[in-house]
Amino acid sequence: METLWSQRYALRTRRMQSSIVRELLKLIEKPDLISFAGGLPAPEVFPIEEFREAAERVLSESGPQSLQYSTTEGCPRLREMIARHTARYGIVVKPENILITSGSQQALDLIGKVFLNSGDRIALERPTYLGALQAWNAYQAQFLGIGMDDEGMRTDDLESVLRGGPKFLYALPNFQNPTGVTLSLKRREIIIDMADHFGVPIIEDDPYGQLRYEGEHLPSLAVMDARARGDKPFSGNVIYLSTFSKTLAPGLRLAWIVAPVEVIQKLVQAKQGTDLHTGTFVQMVAFELARGGFLDKHVLHIRSVYGVRREAILAALAKHMPEGVRWTRPQGGLFIWAILPELMDATALLREAIEEKVAFVPGTAFYDDGSGKNTMRLNFSNATPEKIEEGIARLGAVIQRALARQREPVLQKV
Amino acid sequence: METLWSQRYALRTRRMQSSIVRELLKLIEKPDLISFAGGLPAPEVFPIEEFREAAERVLSESGPQSLQYSTTEGCPRLREMIARHTARYGIVVKPENILITSGSQQALDLIGKVFLNSGDRIALERPTYLGALQAWNAYQAQFLGIGMDDEGMRTDDLESVLRGGPKFLYALPNFQNPTGVTLSLKRREIIIDMADHFGVPIIEDDPYGQLRYEGEHLPSLAVMDARARGDKPFSGNVIYLSTFSKTLAPGLRLAWIVAPVEVIQKLVQAKQGTDLHTGTFVQMVAFELARGGFLDKHVLHIRSVYGVRREAILAALAKHMPEGVRWTRPQGGLFIWAILPELMDATALLREAIEEKVAFVPGTAFYDDGSGKNTMRLNFSNATPEKIEEGIARLGAVIQRALARQREPVLQKV
Repeated sequence: METLWSQRYALRTRRMQSSIVRELLKLIEKPDLISFAGGLPAPEVFPIEEFREAAERVLSESGPQSLQYSTTEGCPRLREMIARHTARYGIVVKPENILITSGSQQALDLIGKVFLNSGDRIALERPTYLGALQAWNAYQAQFLGIGMDDEGMRTDDLESVLRGGPKFLYALPNFQNPTGVTLSLKRREIIIDMADHFGVPIIEDDPYGQLRYEGEHLPSLAVMDARARGDKPFSGNVIYLSTFSKTLAPGLRLAWIVAPVEVIQKLVQAKQGTDLHTGTFVQMVAFELARGGFLDKHVLHIRSVYGVRREAILAALAKHMPEGVRWTRPQGGLFIWAILPELMDATALLREAIEEKVAFVPGTAFYDDGSGKNTMRLNFSNATPEKIEEGIARLGAVIQRALARQREPVLQKV
Repeated sequence: METLWSQRYALRTRRMQSSIVRELLKLIEKPDLISFAGGLPAPEVFPIEEFREAAERVLSESGPQSLQYSTTEGCPRLREMIARHTARYGIVVKPENILITSGSQQALDLIGKVFLNSGDRIALERPTYLGALQAWNAYQAQFLGIGMDDEGMRTDDLESVLRGGPKFLYALPNFQNPTGVTLSLKRREIIIDMADHFGVPIIEDDPYGQLRYEGEHLPSLAVMDARARGDKPFSGNVIYLSTFSKTLAPGLRLAWIVAPVEVIQKLVQAKQGTDLHTGTFVQMVAFELARGGFLDKHVLHIRSVYGVRREAILAALAKHMPEGVRWTRPQGGLFIWAILPELMDATALLREAIEEKVAFVPGTAFYDDGSGKNTMRLNFSNATPEKIEEGIARLGAVIQRALARQREPVLQKV
């Protein structure tokens, strides 16, 4: 239906598209489909009983306050708790350095709103988090993609990208979405050094940092940058993002930004015009739930559950994937990245996979330049180990058939 | 502290400012200050016991689902309920016409994101809702203000404004924020007629429509526009906004947009990049709470409480305001608008008022052109009738003193 609105969309909408990931989330409603799409936590690990108790406590002890408008910055006690938590990982900041956001997606949007003029360039990993591309496409940013390998962002072509004058460098150092790859310590050092040399600040997105199943915790870019400047606790040249979505529950929409106070003030102004503030009730429930050490215990539980699933998917891939398919071996997080033989198209494969009741995200969605046609992202947190084995078996068969078709001689029509 | 970020803010941040209303919200923490600032519902009317039951039910019956990611459009059952509710007021739409937003502020932001290019003009009431100015300033819009009187937006200079080519007309027809004025039926007819003539679509913001304490419900612009086009149920040329903030609780951050499906699809794309989706848990709690007729009963309760408060503030104003001060007589909503004698400056008065432990919002904050220095917005929903009487007595005394100073002969220094 044509309305008066039809001809009135802003220019920026030409670059907005509905994400294939979000469309795929609708598929997971089918009960017998095994989904490696989405980035969904396992519902079995949600601490439902503790949520009930926390909601009960908030409403009985602070009912009116929890349902009322509150400040844009976020609930003071939650910001204090996050500051303490962050300090344990070496990012020593005050509550004034923290802004509560409605999920990390909002953090990316607010950063775009505060920093991006149309045409500004952003340096980022190729592939990178789809939500960042979506958020910053709306501000008509240009992307300077930096290739990746098993140690994360490749630093050999970083210099030329930084010379291109990006507004900032965006990085997911731990168990990156979508590849699952972790940025090595040596690469972290080089990046901090080069970003400093070229005067390019960094956005460090760390939703999965606590979900490590193997190996040693590596210092965040925010910590390393501060140390490089003489062991200050927080230099501010690295803005750090994290979230409760993977450690408590994504349905709350609760995340945070750690930034210099002047940046927080700008972000607060942007957030006022964007959604006034993040929900008071969910902030207070999250605080009640996380306080007193529960969150630490709960993270240990999540690690053990997801660690088993990671083993299950690695074993299933080794068993069911045809020759020529390669994949990453993440030390944490939620994702594995699979690379198919070069001429295969994962998007075309998805239709067939869905018919066989298995789903994944075609990797090209994560490329700013539309490449990566032969890649796919596989989530291993949502399905049980048994489902993972079954789902990868189905997927392996689909790929096997496609490969067999490729090898068939093409019959020429006379 | 200067950081690498300091020189990198986007041009649009020059037009972002922290709202004085938000800064004032911090004042209400002082226990003995009587605040007519903010637009806060009375905490006494929050249905806390029902919230506990609803949260309990959601977590025990649909715990994992309520804590998981969900679709950008919003929870299906909540959208269905809103469609049914909206139909009762004559806006007959399907759930596909509804997008759940994180408060009405996000609705305004998403509308800006989807429709506004830098420099686009928006026709709106002068004064108007501060949050709309904030939201659209971030998209570098220009404002075409239309004067108001006791019947709402003045239609005598509407034609020249509509000839100015605005992207849309923004209106709050019922108990407008900040003036409390309701757009008369005759003016509604003229506006629909002229908007149609000039091909200008309308954003109708209706957060308070259900909170009427006197007089008859007037049809919404959305309904009148559809009727004018031949009794269709929803023509789509009027996008309609409403919210649970005033009928359930603002701390949930739950509102909705009613729009043509093609517009909803664009808004969904914008929302994906903005915050993925509105919190699943609070949407399900609101649905549980509102279903089965509770919301209707609860609205009756709110009306009776706020109706008494409206009487209290009108009586207190009549008793305590010095001669020369005028004010509106709203038939509903949360606000009264006071106009001081011409040379008075309400912003200067606020400092003195706060010393006397009473607060309001200087009216100039609601003007796109910085005028209205001698006006103030008074909220009457938050304080009890006794506090209202006491607060208006304090405010009357402050204004009285300021008036007396104005009348004193100015001593010339020799």
